[in-house]
Amino acid sequence: MKELEKRIQADGRVLGKNILKVDSFLNHQIDPQLMQDMGKEFARFFADEGVTKILTIEASGIAPAVMAGLALDVPVVFGRKSKSQILTDDALTADVYSYTKQTTNQIRVDKRFLTADDRVLLIDDFLANGQALLGLKAIADQANASIVGSGIVIEKAFQQGRQNALDAGLTNVHSLARIAAFEDGQVLFVNEETE
Amino acid sequence: MKELEKRIQADGRVLGKNILKVDSFLNHQIDPQLMQDMGKEFARFFADEGVTKILTIEASGIAPAVMAGLALDVPVVFGRKSKSQILTDDALTADVYSYTKQTTNQIRVDKRFLTADDRVLLIDDFLANGQALLGLKAIADQANASIVGSGIVIEKAFQQGRQNALDAGLTNVHSLARIAAFEDGQVLFVNEETE
Repeated sequence: MKELEKRIQADGRVLGKNILKVDSFLNHQIDPQLMQDMGKEFARFFADEGVTKILTIEASGIAPAVMAGLALDVPVVFGRKSKSQILTDDALTADVYSYTKQTTNQIRVDKRFLTADDRVLLIDDFLANGQALLGLKAIADQANASIVGSGIVIEKAFQQGRQNALDAGLTNVHSLARIAAFEDGQVLFVNEETE
Repeated sequence: MKELEKRIQADGRVLGKNILKVDSFLNHQIDPQLMQDMGKEFARFFADEGVTKILTIEASGIAPAVMAGLALDVPVVFGRKSKSQILTDDALTADVYSYTKQTTNQIRVDKRFLTADDRVLLIDDFLANGQALLGLKAIADQANASIVGSGIVIEKAFQQGRQNALDAGLTNVHSLARIAAFEDGQVLFVNEETE
């Protein structure tokens, strides 16, 4: 998505070898118009999948997921993060390890909001190692819901996330911006024409 | 806002004397269309305030805030919650006590995203005791930003939040639904005509 790539190059900050900060428009300060455009792009891409529900994780997934839900006219459910590993009968849960923060969060979704009839679109802001996406998959699987695709805002294509997602059985993984590498503080995107 | 009141009466669940669960459309599962309608209503109400930025708190404030930001065409900043009380030079912080969870979270906003030139609209999902709203005010005050109003989705008008907000100097507090009481598991709204 050219609009997003341009925004990343204009306002993203590359820190060190591996970190991209997009907190000025995506995950701390939010540009609502960009979010809406991304939501429409997700809706366009997944238009034929019969999506009945979007599943994401708090907090940074909420804005793009809600805009995609608006465009697809389906409800959005966000998994809540918790440090405590409480087990209850009424929640679907998964443990998600964050390589960035080196902590494990449990994510929880109320059973009432995902069922075996649902055709679920997973949405998240980043795909790096894929841990969050696999956690969302585990939750949808517990509900016996069908996962029809995964929509990612920014993919670090030089990390293992996409492969880990495919290995786990996810298909139809679509990223709005795919980063090939960071070079001299600049962001290089995967050239889609040459893939 | 009649649409919201009807939705609360249809899908809200009153638990005990004092708790209203709206997790099927507001703060766990989200109805994107309702969020957009609420965002437009906030934008209509605060249209003449010259808002330059919306400030909210993760996670439940994000969806209504982003929709208001879309309608007002301004960026949205969400405060991040943290259990740790880390002080750094680059963050505006405030401690927020939750009566529901009986815990104190620090909320943090990067200094780059709020300045003395900003005219800030605070948005949150609930107003009960007002602690979150006062935390957002403290953060805006640290940036010497002007607060032009506060937009609340659901106000428990029988609690002290509004009075606490007014006592702290906040004005222009506008709630989309104002709950007068819970009676026999039913939600009674403040009758705006007789106020």
